[in-house]
Amino acid sequence: MIEFNCLTLFPEMFSSFTGTSICKRAIEAGHVEISLIDFREYTTDKHRRVDDYPFGGGAGMLIGPQSVFDCMEAVKEKTAGKKVRTIYMSPSGKTLDSAMVRRLASYDAVNILCGHYEGVDQRIIDELIDEEVSIGDYVLTGGELPAMVLMDSVMRYVDGVLGNGESVVSESHGEGGLLEYPQYTRPADFRGLKVPEVLLSGHHAKILAWQRERAIEKTVRVRPDLIKKASLTKKERDYAESLLRKSENTEE
Amino acid sequence: MIEFNCLTLFPEMFSSFTGTSICKRAIEAGHVEISLIDFREYTTDKHRRVDDYPFGGGAGMLIGPQSVFDCMEAVKEKTAGKKVRTIYMSPSGKTLDSAMVRRLASYDAVNILCGHYEGVDQRIIDELIDEEVSIGDYVLTGGELPAMVLMDSVMRYVDGVLGNGESVVSESHGEGGLLEYPQYTRPADFRGLKVPEVLLSGHHAKILAWQRERAIEKTVRVRPDLIKKASLTKKERDYAESLLRKSENTEE
Repeated sequence: MIEFNCLTLFPEMFSSFTGTSICKRAIEAGHVEISLIDFREYTTDKHRRVDDYPFGGGAGMLIGPQSVFDCMEAVKEKTAGKKVRTIYMSPSGKTLDSAMVRRLASYDAVNILCGHYEGVDQRIIDELIDEEVSIGDYVLTGGELPAMVLMDSVMRYVDGVLGNGESVVSESHGEGGLLEYPQYTRPADFRGLKVPEVLLSGHHAKILAWQRERAIEKTVRVRPDLIKKASLTKKERDYAESLLRKSENTEE
Repeated sequence: MIEFNCLTLFPEMFSSFTGTSICKRAIEAGHVEISLIDFREYTTDKHRRVDDYPFGGGAGMLIGPQSVFDCMEAVKEKTAGKKVRTIYMSPSGKTLDSAMVRRLASYDAVNILCGHYEGVDQRIIDELIDEEVSIGDYVLTGGELPAMVLMDSVMRYVDGVLGNGESVVSESHGEGGLLEYPQYTRPADFRGLKVPEVLLSGHHAKILAWQRERAIEKTVRVRPDLIKKASLTKKERDYAESLLRKSENTEE
């Protein structure tokens, strides 16, 4: 069981996420609880504003401390006694990866502050946030999609969330840290496009060797950065390195 | 104007995305068109199945070629004569970054296939897909959230999508490829937590120098991988390197 408390100015952005697929089922079965909390409800400003101009100049608006502090205080009462982690979704955070996802799944409660506008007042980060997390090196409109990405990835590690037919893939990539090899399903011949013969051979060892080679080739081509950390036999390592040399020569 | 054609088994997952914030406004103003196409509608299977067991063994189900080929054919008719890019959201793709986002924003139409289950038949990728794109090294339930992340980031570069008050930040990070420096807004004293004095000084050069130093410190601490490519003066480079050496010594 994990509890997510999402502080956002746009709680309605989450409704299709919480209402479909694995997430909906996990909530109904009591494995996941998602509270969407509009921190604008906590503002003491008579115009209900939560943002203001930055000190020292600069474009855009910042979310000020008052509404977030008061809202987070209420959340902290709710999660008292639990093992809690409080996150701010931000392009300036550490990049989310499978190791971080597994670590976050071990908490009883994860509080997530979704940023908007140009960001939040630093006192919020210093006083309330345990870690800033980015989902990748690109700019998005707000922290809502990143929060959904984080919740989706984390809840997959929570006991009971995935059914029997679904496997918790423990890494983002396939066997030994390689990208996935090509996969094929029926029909064996689709409009003249044929499944590689080895896959129809029933020869298990040959199939495994074929899949492994294709996975190495794809990883070298698409994500050469992953090859160094991949678990490879001596022979596979030699093959990967010969491919890497070849692709470096082609690029020159 | 950009057109997104999203092929998905769960079109309802997109409704809060297309119905709120910048996305809704961009659609209403005619700068963005999003078609959500359930490719299950194209299956010729009498049980309406689109997935099947993989050849050569392995856990889980794969999306077979027929429904996706037929659906994509319809999409290709719709986008005839346009500059089109067709993408498959997959953890085995190249990782999305700001450069890829800018490149994709230059197309008239971007078709996005959202995977589900264990993946799709390789013939789909070989014949229909221009590139496989991953949003990061973590596992998600399906390609729907990644597709929204991609659309959100890409549409920000399309003319007219952002209003006057909003800036297209062209990079995911701040000035010169560094992480954002700490920002503060009113009040200057919030429950005893004070804004750094320099920001209240009105001394522009001092403020810039302070922001720059803090940005370097944060980047070294959180994303040391970005420092090498950052644009720094000689003095800043020396400062960054002294910090890097210090943090390496602490880790040992």
